[in-house]
Amino acid sequence: MEKLKPFRFSKRFDDVPLIGSAFAGEHPGLIPLAFGFPYPNSFPINELAESVVAALKSEGTEALQYSGGPGQKKILKWIRERSRLRSIDVETDQIMITSGSNQGIDLVARTLTDPGDSVWVEAPVYFGALRAFYLAQNELSAFPVDGDGLRVDLVEEALIEAAAGKRPMPKFIYVLPNYHNPAGINLSVERRKKLAALAYKYNFYIIEDDAYVELNFDGDFLPSIYSFGPERVIYMSTFSKIVAPGIRMAWVISDPEVLSRIKIVKTEGLTSVLMQEAVSCFLEKVDFEDHLRPLVAGYRMRRDAMVKAIGDFFGSEVSFEKPKGGFFLWLSFPSEIDTTKLLHDAVEAGVSFVDGKSFYLDRKPTNNLRLAFSFCDEMQIRKAIRILAMVYQKQKNAVC
Amino acid sequence: MEKLKPFRFSKRFDDVPLIGSAFAGEHPGLIPLAFGFPYPNSFPINELAESVVAALKSEGTEALQYSGGPGQKKILKWIRERSRLRSIDVETDQIMITSGSNQGIDLVARTLTDPGDSVWVEAPVYFGALRAFYLAQNELSAFPVDGDGLRVDLVEEALIEAAAGKRPMPKFIYVLPNYHNPAGINLSVERRKKLAALAYKYNFYIIEDDAYVELNFDGDFLPSIYSFGPERVIYMSTFSKIVAPGIRMAWVISDPEVLSRIKIVKTEGLTSVLMQEAVSCFLEKVDFEDHLRPLVAGYRMRRDAMVKAIGDFFGSEVSFEKPKGGFFLWLSFPSEIDTTKLLHDAVEAGVSFVDGKSFYLDRKPTNNLRLAFSFCDEMQIRKAIRILAMVYQKQKNAVC
Repeated sequence: MEKLKPFRFSKRFDDVPLIGSAFAGEHPGLIPLAFGFPYPNSFPINELAESVVAALKSEGTEALQYSGGPGQKKILKWIRERSRLRSIDVETDQIMITSGSNQGIDLVARTLTDPGDSVWVEAPVYFGALRAFYLAQNELSAFPVDGDGLRVDLVEEALIEAAAGKRPMPKFIYVLPNYHNPAGINLSVERRKKLAALAYKYNFYIIEDDAYVELNFDGDFLPSIYSFGPERVIYMSTFSKIVAPGIRMAWVISDPEVLSRIKIVKTEGLTSVLMQEAVSCFLEKVDFEDHLRPLVAGYRMRRDAMVKAIGDFFGSEVSFEKPKGGFFLWLSFPSEIDTTKLLHDAVEAGVSFVDGKSFYLDRKPTNNLRLAFSFCDEMQIRKAIRILAMVYQKQKNAVC
Repeated sequence: MEKLKPFRFSKRFDDVPLIGSAFAGEHPGLIPLAFGFPYPNSFPINELAESVVAALKSEGTEALQYSGGPGQKKILKWIRERSRLRSIDVETDQIMITSGSNQGIDLVARTLTDPGDSVWVEAPVYFGALRAFYLAQNELSAFPVDGDGLRVDLVEEALIEAAAGKRPMPKFIYVLPNYHNPAGINLSVERRKKLAALAYKYNFYIIEDDAYVELNFDGDFLPSIYSFGPERVIYMSTFSKIVAPGIRMAWVISDPEVLSRIKIVKTEGLTSVLMQEAVSCFLEKVDFEDHLRPLVAGYRMRRDAMVKAIGDFFGSEVSFEKPKGGFFLWLSFPSEIDTTKLLHDAVEAGVSFVDGKSFYLDRKPTNNLRLAFSFCDEMQIRKAIRILAMVYQKQKNAVC
């Protein structure tokens, strides 16, 4: 056998920073405020078990074949009905099931762009989406968020520059409008309308990642960006946060032309048809509002515990927008604090979180960090915030 | 709202012919010899139902979380042990679960190549793989197969030309060594060895797609190509043919460096962890050989029924290699027959198959076609072959 020569892998790896996956599961002793996971006893284990059995008994062999049975149609109908709450009015042929939202983001990026194409994101931005865009070899630009979400005014300024040939026009803008990951804020209705209008005017798409929409602590639903521009918005949501991540089931809604292309890129065919049949049995079995109410109450309770603990242990030394839903709280420290250094000390002391720089393109040190209140219980959350405050005091004293 | 302008989608769609998915499920009255599907009563419905329940009850919340529980480790161990039968000796960190083999092919293509890179395939070749390579914007060349599989001698000649700068060197060669789809033949051991040696000498990878290996009608297992070149072969197999396609679970085996890159490209994270836990419960519950024996017997019976019907209704007017396993029989007609025209008449008469040109890069008319004996029962198979023979006689008379 010849001696091996080095092999040149795809250039797409040259662009991908190692972000995201490094956080999970590594230190069993830690209180993991890094985990953007549902809390463990939120899962409807018994109902899901019954639903899988029901799907297998009633749909029989069709649930196990490549092509699936009637459950798929039923789940698309459920999504169609539920989407009306977001002012989304579509036919089932505009909905497609994916293996989690991340797969949807990846498929859409490869549908809309070629390597070198420009894609705009928020700053901060969910790192899982960033990974898909780096792998698609997109050129990324980021625009800041404030308490009302993405600064659409700055996006418009940049679009005017792009139209004047001073910078590349984006193929799409990736936006997380409700209970932003990591920033915990909502995009205002006015900005949703404006952004949709810009998409038509400047001919780009919007990926609207609405993973957290159902975890609403106040009861108010804002209309989706999709509802203001159905021909230029690709909407996504997921069962990961309302049933369980382990079933790996999310969906994409778009106009039929885009969806037919996304389906071509999804070379694996249908997402687990057995799980589609099972989830449609589950949704028939439960009253969804009855299922959702205690689930959302569990997240609200955790959010409240975190907000209270931050008040108790940090006082006014940190700032944040109180999240109205979702999984995350985005904490800002005095400017001299580097949360990457803080993370190092926090892990030593028994708490994990995600440092702010993981959510920015330039990956420079920042004074923000992301706390997930979704996974831990209230006792753990309070303990973790207490530890975090101690670690912060230590670092502050060292800086001063 | 502005008037919409046309949007430029990714250039990857410019290269993708519409192949493959058009065949399935469209004409409910047809006997579908087009379907490369398992036969419906092959699925272990009750055992799978029990296994999903067992996974949910025993692994509890871990089976529903993003990261999964111990079932994943168990399923990797099962694959490791089973792979020894193919002379594959690996650690579990060299194995990764994918949503079907097609996903594995797609991920590997994007791991190993950039747009414009050269990829070599067999002629005929599985169209699902072709689709992934077109989407990866690979430049494709095809090399013929004979009764002993891929003509490795012609591959070597082309590699010598490539080394001399007369054509591009491939980044990988895609090979289906056992019970070829569509050609129904096996790659000889001598050619496996030779191909692996060439991969080392000329520094390319081999994708070894071993989807059908367990469906062996004679009891002989050939050593995998992987066993002759573990550092330049990426091996794939699947639970679709031995449990059920609807669970969407397959695997990739490669050296750890390649696998770590494939995992980065798989942006969706782990394939359904609940189904991984459930399948590992299933594999603990059944004696796998006892599960496999009647399954394989069912396919052998169907193969025999098809071979006998072809002899009875066609006599010596057609030729084929009798498949020693798998799903498919590749039938060759006299050269004046165009199987695309034959398909049109066959569908009218109540039978579907896949015409030969769907398996070739140039998509010119051919005198071959693919029959799947996997899905229909023996009565249907005999009836379909009788109809096919009548359709053929009609076309032959029209040609003469």
